[in-house]
Amino acid sequence: MASNGEWKVNVPEGTLVIEPTVSKRMYIQLQGKILKSLKRIGNFWVKAKNIATSDPRKVIHGVKVGMALSLVSLFYYMRPLYDGVGGNAMWAVMTVVVAFEYSVGATIAKSFNRASATILAGSIGVGVHWIANQCGEELEPVILQASVTILAAAATFSRFIPSVKARFDYGVMVFILTFSFVSVSGYRVEKLLELARNRVSTIAIGTSICIFTSMLFYPVWAGNELHNLVYKNLERLADSLDGCVTEYFKDSNEDRGRKHEGYKFVLNSKAGEEVMANMARWEPPHGRFKFRHPWKQYLKVGASMRSCAYCIETLSGFINSEVQAPELLKKHMKEVCMTLSSSSSNVLKELATTTKTMTKSTKTHLFVQEMNFAVQSFKNAFKDLSKQALILTEHEAGEEKSTEGTKTVPIIAIFPIATMATLLIEIKERVESIVTEVENMAAQAEFEIENKPSKCDQDLK
Amino acid sequence: MASNGEWKVNVPEGTLVIEPTVSKRMYIQLQGKILKSLKRIGNFWVKAKNIATSDPRKVIHGVKVGMALSLVSLFYYMRPLYDGVGGNAMWAVMTVVVAFEYSVGATIAKSFNRASATILAGSIGVGVHWIANQCGEELEPVILQASVTILAAAATFSRFIPSVKARFDYGVMVFILTFSFVSVSGYRVEKLLELARNRVSTIAIGTSICIFTSMLFYPVWAGNELHNLVYKNLERLADSLDGCVTEYFKDSNEDRGRKHEGYKFVLNSKAGEEVMANMARWEPPHGRFKFRHPWKQYLKVGASMRSCAYCIETLSGFINSEVQAPELLKKHMKEVCMTLSSSSSNVLKELATTTKTMTKSTKTHLFVQEMNFAVQSFKNAFKDLSKQALILTEHEAGEEKSTEGTKTVPIIAIFPIATMATLLIEIKERVESIVTEVENMAAQAEFEIENKPSKCDQDLK
Repeated sequence: MASNGEWKVNVPEGTLVIEPTVSKRMYIQLQGKILKSLKRIGNFWVKAKNIATSDPRKVIHGVKVGMALSLVSLFYYMRPLYDGVGGNAMWAVMTVVVAFEYSVGATIAKSFNRASATILAGSIGVGVHWIANQCGEELEPVILQASVTILAAAATFSRFIPSVKARFDYGVMVFILTFSFVSVSGYRVEKLLELARNRVSTIAIGTSICIFTSMLFYPVWAGNELHNLVYKNLERLADSLDGCVTEYFKDSNEDRGRKHEGYKFVLNSKAGEEVMANMARWEPPHGRFKFRHPWKQYLKVGASMRSCAYCIETLSGFINSEVQAPELLKKHMKEVCMTLSSSSSNVLKELATTTKTMTKSTKTHLFVQEMNFAVQSFKNAFKDLSKQALILTEHEAGEEKSTEGTKTVPIIAIFPIATMATLLIEIKERVESIVTEVENMAAQAEFEIENKPSKCDQDLK
Repeated sequence: MASNGEWKVNVPEGTLVIEPTVSKRMYIQLQGKILKSLKRIGNFWVKAKNIATSDPRKVIHGVKVGMALSLVSLFYYMRPLYDGVGGNAMWAVMTVVVAFEYSVGATIAKSFNRASATILAGSIGVGVHWIANQCGEELEPVILQASVTILAAAATFSRFIPSVKARFDYGVMVFILTFSFVSVSGYRVEKLLELARNRVSTIAIGTSICIFTSMLFYPVWAGNELHNLVYKNLERLADSLDGCVTEYFKDSNEDRGRKHEGYKFVLNSKAGEEVMANMARWEPPHGRFKFRHPWKQYLKVGASMRSCAYCIETLSGFINSEVQAPELLKKHMKEVCMTLSSSSSNVLKELATTTKTMTKSTKTHLFVQEMNFAVQSFKNAFKDLSKQALILTEHEAGEEKSTEGTKTVPIIAIFPIATMATLLIEIKERVESIVTEVENMAAQAEFEIENKPSKCDQDLK
């Protein structure tokens, strides 16, 4: 039986195709579809399991939300509490579902937005209601309707302003929602005030459950996440740089792996960094992070890292390109290139350590000087290259030839190595700008100074 | 009077500082703060005005939300309608506020998520309620509480799975919300069913108002936005490439402007592209976009453009670097470099036109061939360079010297031009991969073929 639902019978004259009955065909198709969807469910399950094992905090977050919800739903079951907040306990449940976010900062931001927007919109709404009431029964709906339309339009537009979008996007939405509810409800002002009191108390219950659950059980601090992301990205850049250059100077027989792709992560971390920095500003002091920790400076460090990552991306593309320098030149330049790149990556690693431990390293300047020396010896090596009389002649092939005792290469042959050199020097420049940004961060965040200055450092002074 | 609230009187012995009274000082501080916040409000206003004038559709969006809200609030004022949907009209208002998004795709996605999640969670909730009811009064709250906790935890965790996050993030939230409401509410099953009918009808009213308002009045299609972004980014890349190379070969006396920074926009458009592609998949066929338009392919085009933009970023950084090629070399190479870069940017412009007009251009291949010829003549030019005997000698300064009738330059002097050459060739390679991706897009989206093949094209065949 063929898999596509046809029977083939080999007869001497050729192939005879016998069509199966319609019901049989449908059965086979259905079977295929069921198998396919079972496979998809299986894949989905595997993906979920991978996420859970690679970051168990995501599972814990799920459990926390479940906990907060069962805590808040107790208000329904325990009569005294239920009576206390009226029939409005629903709003507490809603607050928990909507405001409970992965990081503490995001939860606080949403809770604050929800509470303040509700209070603001509620008071404006009651005010508008009162004014409309005074204007008589005919004008009342007109005024209410107009105020809803105008305020909703203005508030919606304000969500496009970047500063509002970054910090108060959710608040503006709650504002529109609450204002519409209050304005269009048929209640009188006295009833409204009672409703408002209830609403505020339920939101207070909901937000406090959210904030305490997210802060007390395995808290995920956006600030901490951002901090870790930045130092890990510094390490990734260092590894990529090392990896790229090592790859380039490998013997061509060796397998060219893909161990240097950490820079790609750096290229794509802009959006994540911005969200985390925005959330981190809402968080109270925690761990090693004091009040007014310079989260915005992390974005500048991130930008300077990305600028370096662009260069590494170009370098990496160029390593895999077909045009390669002749082996002789490569051997000649291997050592200086490796020294320069490893001195740059040492600087990056030291910056990663500085950020990770939050202590100003006394070694950074030493490493920067080493990097500068490496550039100098790099340039000298190219002067040596010309001393060895690698004369550019009219010789046009890529091979080397000995003429009159001198080795010659065509001018085009030194292009790859020249590009390598220029890119390494450009990367060094960009590493220096990362140094500046990290030092600014260290100054603003008042990183401690390392206790034991190393011997090298003392020698340097 | 000094601005910081102190009076300084110059007396012969030095400067005498007279402290103002406390109230006076507070008054001055207050004045300063008021002025500062007035200035901030002014800035905010200017920013808002700029956004409004640069993209009036954002203002229109605000007006649309206002319109939809006043439409839905009519349900409160018109008694027959009000009685029809019970006291639950609040849910229609909430649906409009929450589900009305800037683009049609996003609005449909949210409406669909809201409606289907409510129905799903409602039916599961009623089911769980029924089971709990059967188990007797003591077990009932335990079963309900446990089901809320477990389902909320599982659903929250599912939001971390990328495929769920991209399409159903909002739906999962509504699911948790509705399920919690249904489970913890003290109602009996019969009451619940009535409630459910009301809820579904209000949500239906809300979502249809949202979808019709967003589709009928000045619709903003996510698909259209993505399409425009992609072809504009292609144009930006072409302009940046031209700008960079022109800048480099400018006489050093001329002012170096910053007209080539369009590539930066391309570097940062990944997140936006992904959101738009996700939303576009929800949209019905509109304008020139048929059902199943290959929106995912736009992301691939975007990725290949970014890869090219990284290279242009490196090129641009290198143009502004201090190490410059000697003028003689620059003059020699100007023409071939300009030809290569302008042929690459012609290809990009042609791709932009192809995408913009959605017609397969017959000229693209011609331009690609031109680009390949340019690379060839580029390489020949470097051979010529060696024929002209620009011999690398031990000469170490950056200047040229005439020795024995040949012009000599130190090897390091050709580095900048070599890097320029390698980068331009690398950019050409990456442009070719953009060509492939755009051609795939044209094939998948069944772009029309240009009516009048140009004369050049016929010659080519």
